[in-house]
Amino acid sequence: MSDYQELSTDITKPYPGSVKIYVDGVAMRQINLCPTPASGEINHPIYVYDTSGVYTDPDYEINLEKGLPIMRDKWIYDRGDIQIVEKPLIKSIINSVKKTYVAKNGECVTQMQYAKAGIITDEMKYVAIRENQNIEKIKDQKLLKQHTGESFGANIPKTITAEFVRDEIAQGRAIIPANINHPELEPAIIGRNFLVKINANIGNSAISSSIEEEVEKMVWGIRWGADTVMDLSTGDNIHKTREWIIRNSPVPIGTVPIYQALEKVKGVAINLNWEIYKETLIEQAEQGVDYFTIHAGLKKEFVPMAQKRLTGIVSRGGSILAKWSQHHNKENFLYTHFEDICKILQQYDIAVSLGDGLRPGSIADANDEAQFAELKTLGELTRIAWRYNVQVMIEGPGHIPLQKIKENVDKELIECYEAPFYTLGPLVCDVGAGYDHITSAIGAANIGWYGCAMLCYVTPKEHLGLPNKDDVREGIITYKIAAHSADLAKGYPGAQIRDNAMSKARYEFRWRDQFHLSLDSEKALQFHDETLPKDSAKDANFCSMCGPDFCAMKITQEIK
Amino acid sequence: MSDYQELSTDITKPYPGSVKIYVDGVAMRQINLCPTPASGEINHPIYVYDTSGVYTDPDYEINLEKGLPIMRDKWIYDRGDIQIVEKPLIKSIINSVKKTYVAKNGECVTQMQYAKAGIITDEMKYVAIRENQNIEKIKDQKLLKQHTGESFGANIPKTITAEFVRDEIAQGRAIIPANINHPELEPAIIGRNFLVKINANIGNSAISSSIEEEVEKMVWGIRWGADTVMDLSTGDNIHKTREWIIRNSPVPIGTVPIYQALEKVKGVAINLNWEIYKETLIEQAEQGVDYFTIHAGLKKEFVPMAQKRLTGIVSRGGSILAKWSQHHNKENFLYTHFEDICKILQQYDIAVSLGDGLRPGSIADANDEAQFAELKTLGELTRIAWRYNVQVMIEGPGHIPLQKIKENVDKELIECYEAPFYTLGPLVCDVGAGYDHITSAIGAANIGWYGCAMLCYVTPKEHLGLPNKDDVREGIITYKIAAHSADLAKGYPGAQIRDNAMSKARYEFRWRDQFHLSLDSEKALQFHDETLPKDSAKDANFCSMCGPDFCAMKITQEIK
Repeated sequence: MSDYQELSTDITKPYPGSVKIYVDGVAMRQINLCPTPASGEINHPIYVYDTSGVYTDPDYEINLEKGLPIMRDKWIYDRGDIQIVEKPLIKSIINSVKKTYVAKNGECVTQMQYAKAGIITDEMKYVAIRENQNIEKIKDQKLLKQHTGESFGANIPKTITAEFVRDEIAQGRAIIPANINHPELEPAIIGRNFLVKINANIGNSAISSSIEEEVEKMVWGIRWGADTVMDLSTGDNIHKTREWIIRNSPVPIGTVPIYQALEKVKGVAINLNWEIYKETLIEQAEQGVDYFTIHAGLKKEFVPMAQKRLTGIVSRGGSILAKWSQHHNKENFLYTHFEDICKILQQYDIAVSLGDGLRPGSIADANDEAQFAELKTLGELTRIAWRYNVQVMIEGPGHIPLQKIKENVDKELIECYEAPFYTLGPLVCDVGAGYDHITSAIGAANIGWYGCAMLCYVTPKEHLGLPNKDDVREGIITYKIAAHSADLAKGYPGAQIRDNAMSKARYEFRWRDQFHLSLDSEKALQFHDETLPKDSAKDANFCSMCGPDFCAMKITQEIK
Repeated sequence: MSDYQELSTDITKPYPGSVKIYVDGVAMRQINLCPTPASGEINHPIYVYDTSGVYTDPDYEINLEKGLPIMRDKWIYDRGDIQIVEKPLIKSIINSVKKTYVAKNGECVTQMQYAKAGIITDEMKYVAIRENQNIEKIKDQKLLKQHTGESFGANIPKTITAEFVRDEIAQGRAIIPANINHPELEPAIIGRNFLVKINANIGNSAISSSIEEEVEKMVWGIRWGADTVMDLSTGDNIHKTREWIIRNSPVPIGTVPIYQALEKVKGVAINLNWEIYKETLIEQAEQGVDYFTIHAGLKKEFVPMAQKRLTGIVSRGGSILAKWSQHHNKENFLYTHFEDICKILQQYDIAVSLGDGLRPGSIADANDEAQFAELKTLGELTRIAWRYNVQVMIEGPGHIPLQKIKENVDKELIECYEAPFYTLGPLVCDVGAGYDHITSAIGAANIGWYGCAMLCYVTPKEHLGLPNKDDVREGIITYKIAAHSADLAKGYPGAQIRDNAMSKARYEFRWRDQFHLSLDSEKALQFHDETLPKDSAKDANFCSMCGPDFCAMKITQEIK
């Protein structure tokens, strides 16, 4: 019997006003625009980055039980450096013909390995096309005009080439998380010289949610623009939930393996050990997880620093490992086994996201001794991972006031050798409960501008409860705004095209185009229609905000 | 017959967990806290700025037809420099005993005039108490700890004294908008060395809304924290709507008089003239409007600069005056009559908010020739207004990408001689329709940090339609977050108390205190209760986000 029947159509319908196109096999969204009413001028389409996978392709028949098409299988296999795992720890319950791979003879099969060897992989070619968003096809040159960015030492070229991608990966400044067991993946690159990415967390807790809901949240999340999804499930059914998610996900999936390891020891943190953790890593590696958050930098000696804080440790993984190391009076076993971990990760090309177990949970604790001691250790671990050619990113922030954000980025770049930074928010105050997607988006936009490569979203439910579907959408769009604003601020090539097209549509009262160009077309339409629902209002030279006599843009046009 | 019966109780009920207190006559909100469950430690109350007026005082009986208590009447009258207007242009329909005042012999009665003469007014004493938020009464010294701010040359003392207030007003760096005909006012100060303020726009358009709705929106707005309210009504009933609003408003009310002047010429902009505008100013001055937005800096020669733009002119007032000056081929009559305007304003102590008719309506148009040409002219006008001792603030931003925001503040400080800056947003990208409260709060937090004194809110309906009550609340809380984050970033004395109290409540699982310390207590409670509605959950050491076994703060406490 199937666990899962069908996704609701609000999750999979094509984007309004848009068509899905493939540019050398890379999915993009083409937004078609109406002619200018007054002059009849043709407004050519624009192209935007599309994370939604085949779900928004009307030609594709969705079958969750079969999983997504496995585009990368040939790429991976043709490199000739992998072998089939005859007896994977757990067989897939979804795609029974899917094979499980591992590097031949325990070797390294990572993008970083290829990059350093001068090899441009198919994944690198893919992301190079994707990052350019088809800007060379823009016909209206005025749309290409944009402000000079301020990039704080980032080095963004005018055109992203596959060779540039390769070099950034070789230098450790960017990563493509792409497990060889996740052939369904449409690769994406994370680094400060590329478009700022966002991550959406999903996952049930012991209190709430089901597998169905989590798969829906993943597809829902990528519809609205999540570049990666972390499955933070705890409680029962962790493996099964993840299997449904990975087999149906075109975006990289991240996890925090310590959560599942903890379930294996029935929630008793002090019973954790390397063997159980290692088994968990391999189980998830074979399943296809693209990046692991590993809290290896939380050394035993840092725990007392955190105990002086107003809010202690607020990272789930961090608190588990702190408890373990204090109880046993031993160094964090993820730190002591870090090389063993790298030896596993390199055989599947799983990126390590070095967890910030000591990120501050309050403004009071921001940028303190504990936070920065751990950051320095993450730098040490980065060097070790790179020795194994394991791709690395560094987790950061939490709650940081505005004036202290840049210090985090500057320190990270120096102490972690420019490995991509991946931060939660940060929240710029503590009193926004119920609105913490906003509190944190303020910090996220700034940290993205300063050089953070990926922003982990926060939903309106943060600090209060588990997010539902609406919260996920709200959180993602809020973070798309933050990431896009950072791209504009850095002066990323072509970043302003969509804004310019929107502004032109505004000035010309092309209401439908305005909806289609918005990050959330459906909500824009719905809000407009609350006061002016008639179809004719979508051709009107005003809206209900100012009414027909007080529309500034209408009056300005009368001057000409 | 009454136009208005009663406000609904959701608008006037006392804040949960709080009591209204008066410190030397200045209203504040005292948030009471529970003891720490584990230790029984007493958590003393904290005090926060309260904009809600008597509406949240359970001892006060609201009567909209009578209007609010007239606290300031004696202050104003005792200065001995005003006289009663025997025949005001329009008699009040609400408070029939209320007198209308004007300066004796056309003299100047402004706060700036007193300040320059070394006189500390009652209004100055009031705001000095208010700005200190009772921090000297904080018993838990740990709550007073805060990060060093970065204030970009602002000069914020550790304690705000009435003498400091006086000096800031004398220098033109701050204003207290306080019309002598608005005795219901609880004065507030706007300047970069004080708490960052926010303004909420209300007002009907020809398409939508009624007087009742607008009065409700005002009371609703100040409940959530609006420091000033602008009534931007157009269409019918402008005078009557404003009368209901002012007589019932404890916060400064701003208007854009050109809107009403335009109604007087039946919406035909080219029929506007100085006489009609002057009559409108006096009518509103007698009614008690505290500040006027006046687009006097949009000189005729700047209009062609705006016509080169992607989105032209997006200020309603700006477009009306541009149309007038181009049609008549004459200089903007607000510019040519600016001294006449000042002569009127000084007799009522109405502050002038120099309108930015050329603020950019798109990222493409940000920081352009048109915007900065007007800003420079606003500087010229500032000097003229100060000659008449008229209090001045300068309107700014619109749509500005992150990297271009600071340039606006820096230019404003220089070219307008540090007059307080009052900006819309800015929105940091153009594609967030439906979420533009967020898009703009990102810019608002930054510009507040850089030195902007007041942030004009944006609601989720911006660009799409007229906001309803929910949108007003969402917009205000979003802007409270932006303003508070800016106060933290600047290192305003005591700014971190509420955050620290919140963080302590979080770590101690005092759920009710967390709700009460949130900027929107009701939403925080509602979100928490979506998954854990039982009363017992409010004493639980976890929430539904992580569940009982994965709560990092709980685990951290087990380590101790």
